[in-house]
Amino acid sequence: MDMLTCSKDRMEDKIRIFSKFGDTGKGGITRLSLSTADLDAREEFCKRCIALGMDIKTDDMANIYATVPGEESLPAIIMGSHIDSVKQGGNYDGILGVLTALEAAETIVIEKVAHKHPITVVVWTNEEGARFDPAMMSSGVITGKFNKDIMLASKDREGFTFKEALEASGYMGEVENRMTAEKYRAFVEVHVEQGPILENEEKDIGILEGVCGMVNYEFSFIGQADHAGTTPMKYRKDALYAAVKVIQYIHDELDKLDSKLVYTTGRMIVSPNIHTVIPDNVKFTLDARHQDPNVMKEVVEIIKKVPSEIEKCETSYEELWSRKTVQFYPKFVDYVEENAKQYGYSAMKMYSGPGHDAQFITDIIPTTMIFVPSENGHSHCEKEFTPLDNCLKGANVLLQTILDIDKN
Amino acid sequence: MDMLTCSKDRMEDKIRIFSKFGDTGKGGITRLSLSTADLDAREEFCKRCIALGMDIKTDDMANIYATVPGEESLPAIIMGSHIDSVKQGGNYDGILGVLTALEAAETIVIEKVAHKHPITVVVWTNEEGARFDPAMMSSGVITGKFNKDIMLASKDREGFTFKEALEASGYMGEVENRMTAEKYRAFVEVHVEQGPILENEEKDIGILEGVCGMVNYEFSFIGQADHAGTTPMKYRKDALYAAVKVIQYIHDELDKLDSKLVYTTGRMIVSPNIHTVIPDNVKFTLDARHQDPNVMKEVVEIIKKVPSEIEKCETSYEELWSRKTVQFYPKFVDYVEENAKQYGYSAMKMYSGPGHDAQFITDIIPTTMIFVPSENGHSHCEKEFTPLDNCLKGANVLLQTILDIDKN
Repeated sequence: MDMLTCSKDRMEDKIRIFSKFGDTGKGGITRLSLSTADLDAREEFCKRCIALGMDIKTDDMANIYATVPGEESLPAIIMGSHIDSVKQGGNYDGILGVLTALEAAETIVIEKVAHKHPITVVVWTNEEGARFDPAMMSSGVITGKFNKDIMLASKDREGFTFKEALEASGYMGEVENRMTAEKYRAFVEVHVEQGPILENEEKDIGILEGVCGMVNYEFSFIGQADHAGTTPMKYRKDALYAAVKVIQYIHDELDKLDSKLVYTTGRMIVSPNIHTVIPDNVKFTLDARHQDPNVMKEVVEIIKKVPSEIEKCETSYEELWSRKTVQFYPKFVDYVEENAKQYGYSAMKMYSGPGHDAQFITDIIPTTMIFVPSENGHSHCEKEFTPLDNCLKGANVLLQTILDIDKN
Repeated sequence: MDMLTCSKDRMEDKIRIFSKFGDTGKGGITRLSLSTADLDAREEFCKRCIALGMDIKTDDMANIYATVPGEESLPAIIMGSHIDSVKQGGNYDGILGVLTALEAAETIVIEKVAHKHPITVVVWTNEEGARFDPAMMSSGVITGKFNKDIMLASKDREGFTFKEALEASGYMGEVENRMTAEKYRAFVEVHVEQGPILENEEKDIGILEGVCGMVNYEFSFIGQADHAGTTPMKYRKDALYAAVKVIQYIHDELDKLDSKLVYTTGRMIVSPNIHTVIPDNVKFTLDARHQDPNVMKEVVEIIKKVPSEIEKCETSYEELWSRKTVQFYPKFVDYVEENAKQYGYSAMKMYSGPGHDAQFITDIIPTTMIFVPSENGHSHCEKEFTPLDNCLKGANVLLQTILDIDKN
């Protein structure tokens, strides 16, 4: 049979137009949450939704819900992502999830596709946390993960609070408009992979099973700062060398675990950091992620075996934060798999390493995600790119998955 | 026979009084070159020299030469060190070399000790380089190591040039007053060890044979910055892990060389240094020092074996600077050894790791150095301490060595 498909021309138009909001002139965008660029993009989004006859509501966190009415009085099916970006980010992270959802809704409206449930396109406010910490702020507030008062007080670099930005935005609506389990039945989010796996494995679609559990630790080493030219090796307490030993131990041990485990020492601070002084204080972070809670337990066991004294330096570690593995709704995962197959797209099951709004929403209503490839795995940079064909494929699988949920 | 000795009371008085110039109130001093604190200390130094009937001259770099006339018309014997300190430095580094020299001269004057040569106490300007880069600036200029015009243009943090500070100091004299091989016959410098060896070996006196050769390299690693949560381990180009591998290699290989070799990775810069991003750019320094040029050659050979690609990262290194081993004048080294023995002081031969003005002066006239212990090896900090008895022992060995040079 001929599958219903979204429009490649319309998809191309959407990506091109929205790439103008916050354009850095160097291939990417800076569209911090509730900035002028973000508000301009929101205005364009609302204008397009209104043109399609959709009803627009916003909640108290400025999340936007644009709805195509359903044929029956049922909870809505919701799809979308975020519009904000990091500083000098790309034209796909977040916004593609909004634009594929808008394109799916547009296809349903224009093609007059029958559907029982109302269908809502959502824009989650401040997913990146790049202007106002933390990330996934507004999906976090409405799902009870974050305290709203603390979020309102979050400040940007200029000292503006999130509350001030929210009130000035024109998008602050009622608490009653928040997504709830009573009013919404399901959520599906399309997102770029932000990694190289799909491209390397030559797959069009990532069928998300969940979001990897993660731990983030900080290790500290305290030695003795002495003169590089006068202190014999045997008397030294070199905090950097102690840190090097532990990084090597971590690599040696974690490499024995499942090959899907990823772990990273991204931040390292050496003090006093003078070429003629033995470092007396070194800290580094360890980020580790895997979908299987048992593997994460093994990671923690390996961390716990780090002794409290290495190379005569005091060694300690603390968990900065952690996240349990999130499992998406298996029935929806099956729909995505089946639809990719029906369209003839190559696909593979995977877990997301990064966090997404969907990981909070899944605690409230059945949820899943669809990934499309990131060229060279680049993300959070101006080089971020996903070919138009892949964007369209993501939109098509989203469309069909929404319609499957509507039917079943 | 009874050995001539300096006065413990006068030595104590000198250390106590000079500790007031730049007193931080926390046991140490901040006496940056040509600062008010430095100028106050210079004034006190000159006042004391004049009281002893010494003749004071300064050269164009504000080096001070205070001279006790000799009985014959001969080149002078010169001894001394520097008055300036690092920020929050101690009461011994540099100043002890000036005060032991002053005490030796005072003993000669008061005890009416016969001596043929004029005997000069010198204060070298800006040894530390803490206010105006580089270190050992003025001994460097008069021995032809540094270009004077470049030195004059060296700026402090407030933007003042060394030239401005020099002109305002009141200590800028004539080029004709510089130390030269024609006017001076020998130089001896007393200094605190700035390391833990003498204390650990329970020795009173360090008989310096020279200053260690050193190399300072910077290693660079270029990888690929990718998302910590999305990039499988096998695709990574982790510049930090490449750096860790090389630091471990350096330790493994350099530890096979002579145990007197010291080497240090003091500075390490990780970029972008974000806990969720794989580092794509890491740099670290390697400082290595040894007295034997053959050992230093082996160090460089080991560095040269570092491959240009490690863990898929581009690896490179460059020499930032190096210093050849400096050998002091063997006859003077013998004098120091014999005099320590005559006084009944325990002593050991050693090389200096840090640089000192003496390493430049030795290229012009016969030179040696005498070390006294640093408690716990601390230096360049407020905790820097050398017991009074050890300071006096240093002054006595200096006194007798100067008199030996005078006689022979």
